[in-house]
Amino acid sequence: MRTLFHHPLSPFSRKVRVALAEKRLDFALELEKPWERREEFMLLNPAGEVPVLVEEDGSVIADQTAICEYLEDAYPATGLLGREVALRAEVRRLVGWFDVKFRAEVTDLLVGEKLFKRFSGQGTPHTQSIRAGLANIHYHLDYIGWLCERRTWLAGDQFSWADIAAAAQLSSIDYLGDVPWDDHPEARNFYARVKSRPSFRPLLTDHQPGLPPPKHYADLDF
Amino acid sequence: MRTLFHHPLSPFSRKVRVALAEKRLDFALELEKPWERREEFMLLNPAGEVPVLVEEDGSVIADQTAICEYLEDAYPATGLLGREVALRAEVRRLVGWFDVKFRAEVTDLLVGEKLFKRFSGQGTPHTQSIRAGLANIHYHLDYIGWLCERRTWLAGDQFSWADIAAAAQLSSIDYLGDVPWDDHPEARNFYARVKSRPSFRPLLTDHQPGLPPPKHYADLDF
Repeated sequence: MRTLFHHPLSPFSRKVRVALAEKRLDFALELEKPWERREEFMLLNPAGEVPVLVEEDGSVIADQTAICEYLEDAYPATGLLGREVALRAEVRRLVGWFDVKFRAEVTDLLVGEKLFKRFSGQGTPHTQSIRAGLANIHYHLDYIGWLCERRTWLAGDQFSWADIAAAAQLSSIDYLGDVPWDDHPEARNFYARVKSRPSFRPLLTDHQPGLPPPKHYADLDF
Repeated sequence: MRTLFHHPLSPFSRKVRVALAEKRLDFALELEKPWERREEFMLLNPAGEVPVLVEEDGSVIADQTAICEYLEDAYPATGLLGREVALRAEVRRLVGWFDVKFRAEVTDLLVGEKLFKRFSGQGTPHTQSIRAGLANIHYHLDYIGWLCERRTWLAGDQFSWADIAAAAQLSSIDYLGDVPWDDHPEARNFYARVKSRPSFRPLLTDHQPGLPPPKHYADLDF
């Protein structure tokens, strides 16, 4: 069986889980706590990061971007990039926006500070960072709203990696109840559409022991 | 004429410059100081980051990863990814290593603190960050050495994006004279091989006004 080493609250793990489901590829989940730097895991991925995909034939794909591009190369049937060169560039631009910019300006400051810092025993959350994350998220939700006013999905007419990348980050933060949905109805509407896809459902049943999500987290009509 | 908006000491700008030259694509360079947040530039790339590629037909490609993948999609003739799916995944894993991990653990702490912080008027360099960057670089140079003992180039037999990604980060740091080459002969040998490629030469003539590079910077036999 294909196996994905993941952590439930890692946005990049979520990104790959959704994509595997969109492509209708069966997989088993293996919980990995990357901060433990488990020796067998470090052999799979010397960078020590989740997710890591191990195919049935034993081949190992590490690095979240490499996994996503690999899924396009190896399983092109349900393409999530589009065919046209300019569209593919736009999808990837937005993936970069959410993977790099949104992650650094929002997710790392909220999920990183509040959860992963605690899990990994790296001290207490930094109040100023959390405050910055809560301030920065508005600008990003506005950008999602701006895109949705102009396009069906974030990068164009089709559901793509851009939507998966955005929803993966948002869903990790939503687990903490830190997305100000009331102020951003267009972004909420976007996220509701992603949430209602069968590929996204398994993420909504994730429960971190001792840290229940807010009530609206799994609600499709939040 | 195809135009690349870049900054000479931005490693991602360097990465794209080398790739364009490897693919024998003509381009003009346009200096951009991203911290100025120039209005016309923000319209090209709302993320406000270099590099940005503008094609002769006016199409705009932003986000460094998106540009690199675009170059593969649009100009496949001189492929820098390889053809085989597993090899492409390995190339991209290493690109992720240098673009994300090396950048965060080394480049941002050295080039970011010493140069871009000063350029953008964001205060004085953080001594502890610089010290961390100088400590972290050894581990990465060891990894380059380890790979080079097993392979012709970092990802396999062929020169690829992995080599470009690594050399782009190294060259920005080398401009500061902060790469401890003497301690890492295999990494030095790798970098010397990249440096001697015609695609890399233009980078070695870059001069930041008021901040000359160390003498060995442009030396092919350093």
